[in-house]
Amino acid sequence: MQMGTLAVQQIDDSIQAMVRRDVEAAEAVMQRDAELDALERKVENQTIRLLALRQPMARDLRDIVGALRIASNLERIGDFAANVAKRSLALQSLPTVELTGSLAPIGRTVADMLKSVIQVYESDDLAGALAVRDRDEEVDRAYTALFRELLTYMMESPQRITACTHLLFAAKNLERIGDHATNIAETIVFRIQGRLPEEERHKGDDSSFTVLGTDRV
Amino acid sequence: MQMGTLAVQQIDDSIQAMVRRDVEAAEAVMQRDAELDALERKVENQTIRLLALRQPMARDLRDIVGALRIASNLERIGDFAANVAKRSLALQSLPTVELTGSLAPIGRTVADMLKSVIQVYESDDLAGALAVRDRDEEVDRAYTALFRELLTYMMESPQRITACTHLLFAAKNLERIGDHATNIAETIVFRIQGRLPEEERHKGDDSSFTVLGTDRV
Repeated sequence: MQMGTLAVQQIDDSIQAMVRRDVEAAEAVMQRDAELDALERKVENQTIRLLALRQPMARDLRDIVGALRIASNLERIGDFAANVAKRSLALQSLPTVELTGSLAPIGRTVADMLKSVIQVYESDDLAGALAVRDRDEEVDRAYTALFRELLTYMMESPQRITACTHLLFAAKNLERIGDHATNIAETIVFRIQGRLPEEERHKGDDSSFTVLGTDRV
Repeated sequence: MQMGTLAVQQIDDSIQAMVRRDVEAAEAVMQRDAELDALERKVENQTIRLLALRQPMARDLRDIVGALRIASNLERIGDFAANVAKRSLALQSLPTVELTGSLAPIGRTVADMLKSVIQVYESDDLAGALAVRDRDEEVDRAYTALFRELLTYMMESPQRITACTHLLFAAKNLERIGDHATNIAETIVFRIQGRLPEEERHKGDDSSFTVLGTDRV
């Protein structure tokens, strides 16, 4: 729970750093990342102690293996937020790109997914976990749309290429945070049911295949 | 071991798909990704069975928790290779970028790191694990250099922006494969010693801060 709360704050602050060009927020995010790393180590050590000393079974065992997985997802989410913060510093010395603001709604959605999944973890709520997982498609679509917009913008303003590239990677980081929130939701399903959700999740990220009309040879 | 061998093949084939514009290789990589996913599930299930039925201690416990972690790293490596393959398909319909060839040496290095780390896993070789981990700095530096080259190239040839963006993300995927090979090396250290390597690893990836001379406002 402590890792989850910290990870949500890291996402919020990294978006603030990016959108408001807030250097202090960026530096705070980068510094606090070590706290998430330390908390993950702590969860790992406690997990291994518990497995060795208590020999848990069934639901207890799934709780413990689940905690190990979720801690790893939260640590990665922290890395992505720290990378958004880093890129906001590179953007300080570059010309402004109006599309920077488009990161904010994606950031809010993934921060929201993470907040929900933390509540779902505490309340052990199967339907809630599946609902979080379903929101990832929305993130993927928003990311793919922004990817296309940024490509178009770069073609029109080649002097903004470096700035847009950092924004592309920042958007990708946010999209990956959505994936990790989804993984956490799936681990919660596993913890409750003893198996992962059966139905394949719909995915909306087609950005890897993106070619614009103007690109065709 | 089976997952590791398959992951190495996926990296090799995705690079082939990218550099030689080989559609068949790309499609084969994308299809085979499901095999890695299935193998990870198998490792997870076996891990949980072993923990529940055998209540392992000390080194046995570390072997099992280590296998769980490594399977997750290998599954992610497969995802990155599949993404390189996907992007090679987008590149098919785009003008050629000479820098595509620069992906090959990074791909060879990370495939090599992964091959070594699999051997180290089998031979339980502490020094070997630390040596693999040290190679990641080389990957990070090569990635950062290619990142800068691609930015420069995009500024000079705005009609190549979409192609270069896919190459930037493909390069990032390879760099992430290096990180996961490093994580595997660290898990091997943990498995042998009961603790992670103490010394912080040197990192050479400064690409998140990259601003070119020509970018300054």
